Amino acid sequence: MIENEPMIGPATYFRPEHRAALDPRTRALVDRREAVLSPGYRLFYDHPIEFVRGSGTKLYTRDGDEYLDVYNNVPSVGHSHPRVTAAIAEQAALLNTHTRYLHEGLIDYAELLLDSFTHGLDTLTLVCTGSEANDLALRVAKQATGHRGIVVTENAYHGVTTEIAAISPSLGGTDSLAPWVRTVRPPVDDGAVMVADARTAIAELRAAGHGVAALIVDTAFASDGFLAPSPGTRSALAEVQRLVHAAGGVLIADEVQPGFGRLGQRSGEPGLWGYRHHDLTPDLVTIGKPMANGLPVAALVARRELMSAFGERVRYFNTFAGTPVSVAAARATWQVLHDENLPEHAATIGAELLARLSELVQQHDRLRAARGQGLYLAVDVVDRETGAPDAQAAVAIVSALRERRILISASGRDNAALKLRPPLPFSRADVDRFATELDAALRDLD
Amino acid sequence: MIENEPMIGPATYFRPEHRAALDPRTRALVDRREAVLSPGYRLFYDHPIEFVRGSGTKLYTRDGDEYLDVYNNVPSVGHSHPRVTAAIAEQAALLNTHTRYLHEGLIDYAELLLDSFTHGLDTLTLVCTGSEANDLALRVAKQATGHRGIVVTENAYHGVTTEIAAISPSLGGTDSLAPWVRTVRPPVDDGAVMVADARTAIAELRAAGHGVAALIVDTAFASDGFLAPSPGTRSALAEVQRLVHAAGGVLIADEVQPGFGRLGQRSGEPGLWGYRHHDLTPDLVTIGKPMANGLPVAALVARRELMSAFGERVRYFNTFAGTPVSVAAARATWQVLHDENLPEHAATIGAELLARLSELVQQHDRLRAARGQGLYLAVDVVDRETGAPDAQAAVAIVSALRERRILISASGRDNAALKLRPPLPFSRADVDRFATELDAALRDLD
Repeated sequence: MIENEPMIGPATYFRPEHRAALDPRTRALVDRREAVLSPGYRLFYDHPIEFVRGSGTKLYTRDGDEYLDVYNNVPSVGHSHPRVTAAIAEQAALLNTHTRYLHEGLIDYAELLLDSFTHGLDTLTLVCTGSEANDLALRVAKQATGHRGIVVTENAYHGVTTEIAAISPSLGGTDSLAPWVRTVRPPVDDGAVMVADARTAIAELRAAGHGVAALIVDTAFASDGFLAPSPGTRSALAEVQRLVHAAGGVLIADEVQPGFGRLGQRSGEPGLWGYRHHDLTPDLVTIGKPMANGLPVAALVARRELMSAFGERVRYFNTFAGTPVSVAAARATWQVLHDENLPEHAATIGAELLARLSELVQQHDRLRAARGQGLYLAVDVVDRETGAPDAQAAVAIVSALRERRILISASGRDNAALKLRPPLPFSRADVDRFATELDAALRDLD
Repeated sequence: MIENEPMIGPATYFRPEHRAALDPRTRALVDRREAVLSPGYRLFYDHPIEFVRGSGTKLYTRDGDEYLDVYNNVPSVGHSHPRVTAAIAEQAALLNTHTRYLHEGLIDYAELLLDSFTHGLDTLTLVCTGSEANDLALRVAKQATGHRGIVVTENAYHGVTTEIAAISPSLGGTDSLAPWVRTVRPPVDDGAVMVADARTAIAELRAAGHGVAALIVDTAFASDGFLAPSPGTRSALAEVQRLVHAAGGVLIADEVQPGFGRLGQRSGEPGLWGYRHHDLTPDLVTIGKPMANGLPVAALVARRELMSAFGERVRYFNTFAGTPVSVAAARATWQVLHDENLPEHAATIGAELLARLSELVQQHDRLRAARGQGLYLAVDVVDRETGAPDAQAAVAIVSALRERRILISASGRDNAALKLRPPLPFSRADVDRFATELDAALRDLD
């Protein structure tokens, strides 16, 4: 649900004009795939890769070639983690029904999960995808506030349902937004621009009669440039949160990407949720992607009073959500996350990876502004002469790394940032391997 | 996603006032559940059931009590079918990534699946839920036609995203519909009312400037009263389809419930899709629920030109859709469906079940109008004096059958129809057991 690469310009996707250059098996698969799947489907790389096996931070082709995964944030506790696999297999063999019969697994998991939330976020609703979670969050916000207006960051991405695509400017620009949506710049530097934009957005929504139902923010600000928390971002977000509440709206923290330890442990915190890094107190939190290490599981966590206001007027039942198999996968993922101390590890190894990236920025004038938090990092690729974002070079680096069996992507508004978000059990050896290959790819490019 | 029980009136849900009557374990589970899940969650029955194991058409409690499942249409090839379980376990242990790498399983499955469609329905887009499938179908229809208006049946249910709830009058009545939605009566009798309503709906949508983007129909007309195909429904639907096409709109067949053989094989047909029973030629088809026997898998099948029109302007990527584990489950389900001749079986055993229901209608003046198709059947419960729908009696029958270890539900606009939609491997012994217990429950009620 969360790929923000632009429609046009250089991209790391397969293009039909590369068909002739493919090996026969890949060409045959690409042709067969093209014949049956919607034209909207894309394949990564000019030479797409067929993976058949995964383990930890590695993916393997049919021929046994090993790739280091510095891209995939869904298999967050590692590809095909044996404990998650075993939990899925065991539960699938026993039972997989829905939430209208009692099943203790669901209750156990809900208790575990909610225990990690603060500030009265005490009520769980399971869904299947991050898009469904955000769609439901907006329905709840609108019902509970009686307002319709939504405030988002200027390059936000929150999902693909009709409603959520209409609040996601990264998909189609501000032209594609619904009339009741206003954008604010993200809290860069001291965050003053975000506060000023929020005042304007709120005033406009009120003047238009929409009122303010919610501000929704990805707490990693991933599609807005990967902003790490700082005193500046914290004070700006605190003020924006105050303005939204004063206007009768609620704050939705979209933790679909940053959640479950991706941003690493903050000192004195369990380290699972991005909003804690920013000292926010959201009213609704959406989670998903890494929640069950790849099975379609997502959720909305909310203050109970908001869900009561919604539940009194609206019926909501999601057939596939909260089923015993989904919950078994989510619970095993949760247990691995904690037993293997992955949020703490993400902070430590993420800092090392960021340090290596920063060294490379010193050594290569094509790289600039290594940044991020935990194992969610980015670095800009720029033109060496002008310092302008260089999407062409970013794509060339991604492709060169693919040849070196390293998976990353180019992302950001200009498609000129390298995005790093590996499975959390990323090791020191993985950091070395990645940094060495990136260094070599950059030298080759010079 | 598809429970149409009304918000008010008698229902077969647990109510807090029954808490004291629960056994201690059930009470403890209910209390714990209540403390963590959204108030919108419901439990079936005044005395909720905790299942821990399922097999074929049976569900089992912790104490080993066996229940006959005449309700659950998602585990359509049977609860925890060993071939589906094995496929999930095997693939989960190997790999579970996304559709931007090549994976032959996805291609194999897409080829198998599309081969069962007709009339140029040649392009697959995988999603995770029926709601997502219908939401995407509407986005595609709107983009491809340039229109906005949607026509639905008067008690339609199509899902729970913001957009789809706004075209689902069964959730909140016509007041809850978006301004660009119009309803038509279903094709009862000779279907003349549907044709007349469609003419009005189309004229209104055009006059309001919305135009006609799509007519969407559940091809079992489940929430509109379970209409089996007949010469009357066929000719009415053919005319309505013609009117929609003439207005520049498309036809969306919602096969989320009727699809994958639920309606039984029609002579000379593979029998997988409800639209074939009605001789319709839809432009878009949505499928889901039984597709992977319980894993969150759904899809949109479409004519390629529509998806091209959409794909040129809109980016769509669904993280959890089409992953190797989801596809492995879907493919194993498909294989079992065919290897065990379940669509053919659904026709045969469904006819037997319908015949037994019709006998019971003869014997019990509380029952009326046994109807349906394949293993998707309904019978009305009426007041013996007045013949009016009797929701109270329907709920009493559902509860009495629960005590007799038979699972069914009350449904329909008045909540006064018994709804039967068991897993497809429903046996002759299962038919006997169900009919015997329903007969006894009715006698007890007299």
